[in-house]
Amino acid sequence: MIPDNDFITHEGVPGPTKEEIRCLVMCKSGVSKDDIVVDIGCGTGGLTLEFAKRAKKVYAVDKNINALNITEKNLKKHDLDKKVNLIHEDALEALKDTKNFDILMIGGSGGDLSSIIKEGYNKLNSGGKIVVTSILIETPVEAIKTMKNLQMTVDIVNISISKGKIMDRGTMMLAKNPIIIVTGKK
Amino acid sequence: MIPDNDFITHEGVPGPTKEEIRCLVMCKSGVSKDDIVVDIGCGTGGLTLEFAKRAKKVYAVDKNINALNITEKNLKKHDLDKKVNLIHEDALEALKDTKNFDILMIGGSGGDLSSIIKEGYNKLNSGGKIVVTSILIETPVEAIKTMKNLQMTVDIVNISISKGKIMDRGTMMLAKNPIIIVTGKK
Amino acid sequence: MIPDNDFITHEGVPGPTKEEIRCLVMCKSGVSKDDIVVDIGCGTGGLTLEFAKRAKKVYAVDKNINALNITEKNLKKHDLDKKVNLIHEDALEALKDTKNFDILMIGGSGGDLSSIIKEGYNKLNSGGKIVVTSILIETPVEAIKTMKNLQMTVDIVNISISKGKIMDRGTMMLAKNPIIIVTGKK
Amino acid sequence: MIPDNDFITHEGVPGPTKEEIRCLVMCKSGVSKDDIVVDIGCGTGGLTLEFAKRAKKVYAVDKNINALNITEKNLKKHDLDKKVNLIHEDALEALKDTKNFDILMIGGSGGDLSSIIKEGYNKLNSGGKIVVTSILIETPVEAIKTMKNLQMTVDIVNISISKGKIMDRGTMMLAKNPIIIVTGKK
Repeated sequence: MIPDNDFITHEGVPGPTKEEIRCLVMCKSGVSKDDIVVDIGCGTGGLTLEFAKRAKKVYAVDKNINALNITEKNLKKHDLDKKVNLIHEDALEALKDTKNFDILMIGGSGGDLSSIIKEGYNKLNSGGKIVVTSILIETPVEAIKTMKNLQMTVDIVNISISKGKIMDRGTMMLAKNPIIIVTGKK
Repeated sequence: MIPDNDFITHEGVPGPTKEEIRCLVMCKSGVSKDDIVVDIGCGTGGLTLEFAKRAKKVYAVDKNINALNITEKNLKKHDLDKKVNLIHEDALEALKDTKNFDILMIGGSGGDLSSIIKEGYNKLNSGGKIVVTSILIETPVEAIKTMKNLQMTVDIVNISISKGKIMDRGTMMLAKNPIIIVTGKK
Repeated sequence: MIPDNDFITHEGVPGPTKEEIRCLVMCKSGVSKDDIVVDIGCGTGGLTLEFAKRAKKVYAVDKNINALNITEKNLKKHDLDKKVNLIHEDALEALKDTKNFDILMIGGSGGDLSSIIKEGYNKLNSGGKIVVTSILIETPVEAIKTMKNLQMTVDIVNISISKGKIMDRGTMMLAKNPIIIVTGKK
Repeated sequence: MIPDNDFITHEGVPGPTKEEIRCLVMCKSGVSKDDIVVDIGCGTGGLTLEFAKRAKKVYAVDKNINALNITEKNLKKHDLDKKVNLIHEDALEALKDTKNFDILMIGGSGGDLSSIIKEGYNKLNSGGKIVVTSILIETPVEAIKTMKNLQMTVDIVNISISKGKIMDRGTMMLAKNPIIIVTGKK
């Protein structure tokens, strides 16, 4: 995994997603080298870069132009920009314009989560996965409900991580905010 | 419980111990109105004040004079200062000088944890409890080992708390650092 | 707190609520000796007994007669039965029949959570609290939404606890299922 | 990742390591296709198989012949047995007999953790990693101390996971025991 501090960041653009969460999202998505990935709400590009290292093609979508700019900088820094198309558009619009894909990553939804999942489901190849990560407790509830209605197989995992900081007097554990990953398989 | 933001704080003095942890320490200590409590490493006075509300007498010990000063201010603010003796001394010295007690609270040990537990055990009334809280992973290991050697009944609990922050777009969960509470009963 | 293994249990009746969670619910509720408490979904009686030790009067409600029977047995075992009225009724019906109270504890709602909170709010004394505990992720979302609409001050805390088991080769940490406590103040 | 229920298990043999933990161990180890891996305490073979899918060669060591037998069965089931040598030996002996390697995985140490880390360090290629996983709180403390003395760069992460179970009345979160992963880089 790319270390957290290897990303260029930009004030007001969320991310990068922490190393351990990126790791688990890669595993849950089951991404492999022939996959087409759509990454909604790419932010700093943490997940975009990890998908770019493993997939055939990634479409990174964000409404915030600063997010796309910083994602582009990070892609170039890690020589991954040729694998990624940056799309400055609303999530729903972007999904309507795109062809079919294997993985839909939703890291930010702007309140349209249910519509994005439904629209994404239509373009999702059979066996494909929709992955939703969130720090809000309302988001997984909506994701689970929508995926269940679409008859997807749903996996839900809440991850609480604390990282050790070695000091003279001992090892202090510093908590990261918990993340819920909801994965639906078509 | 006294709300976290109801404590006067001082830069460089740790604490106050978070509300939920104070709550659990009170339960684990089993403090009641006839109890004598010794509180080692009182810091901002978070636990000192809670013990003062429930016990007969509290001896608050800290090597840091700023900690004692801020604890005294908090005691006066909540009208609990008459219940508490402030002791500016090394933990081991303070324990040697004190009479028997019912609860020994160790929130900070300055590296002498094993000696403090052993010395405290000698002064602990039968049925009394030693409670050790820590954010370091080495501390509970040493506490458990020492208490086991003293034939104490040991209870160990690791508490990870996250608190909800209500925002327009949902409820974000913010993690607090995990705390381990080790309680030994004589 | 009453130790977990000090409760009589009955197959099919949930509970008792774990010691640490009972402890935190008591703190969050702010229960004191003049309080009237209504406990919806009393189950094994874990919280009922703790409230009975601290409040003036507790009304324990459950639709399941086995729950009321086992709660009664536990109340008698701990000599707390005179403080508690057992009510074999639907939660909403019970709330309509009761007088005003200071604390409404909702440990089980049978799907009517929003209605129970609204009805309970009407009978809640000013400064009183509604406490909702849940192991489901949908419940806190609904509780928060309803309490916000009622203009209550809402506190949300997710508690993950693991307990140490001392073995020959070391101390193993065994996780308990996470609990979310939502507390609304009128 | 291989699903948890895709492993053949054997009473008395621990494991398999849960999917999410296997995922994080793979990320922390940084395993790639030219790597030689030594897996101490292979148990059911959960990590052995994941390393076999990603590395050049894996040496799986266990003192328990049942563990080696079940690991072999799982390797054959997933057609990974040609990548793995099974070694029925004490960890320290096995390390003395082996050539240099890139990753040392220690999932079980039989009390010799410090010696195993030191011996492993001698055989570890520069840039290589030693990964220690544990459910005991004493193990990471010893691992950190030993790795620090060897001047390794140490990463410590505590992972608490709960998995959602979808039921009629909502999504219940079921906790898995917390795991600490300590990773030392040479």
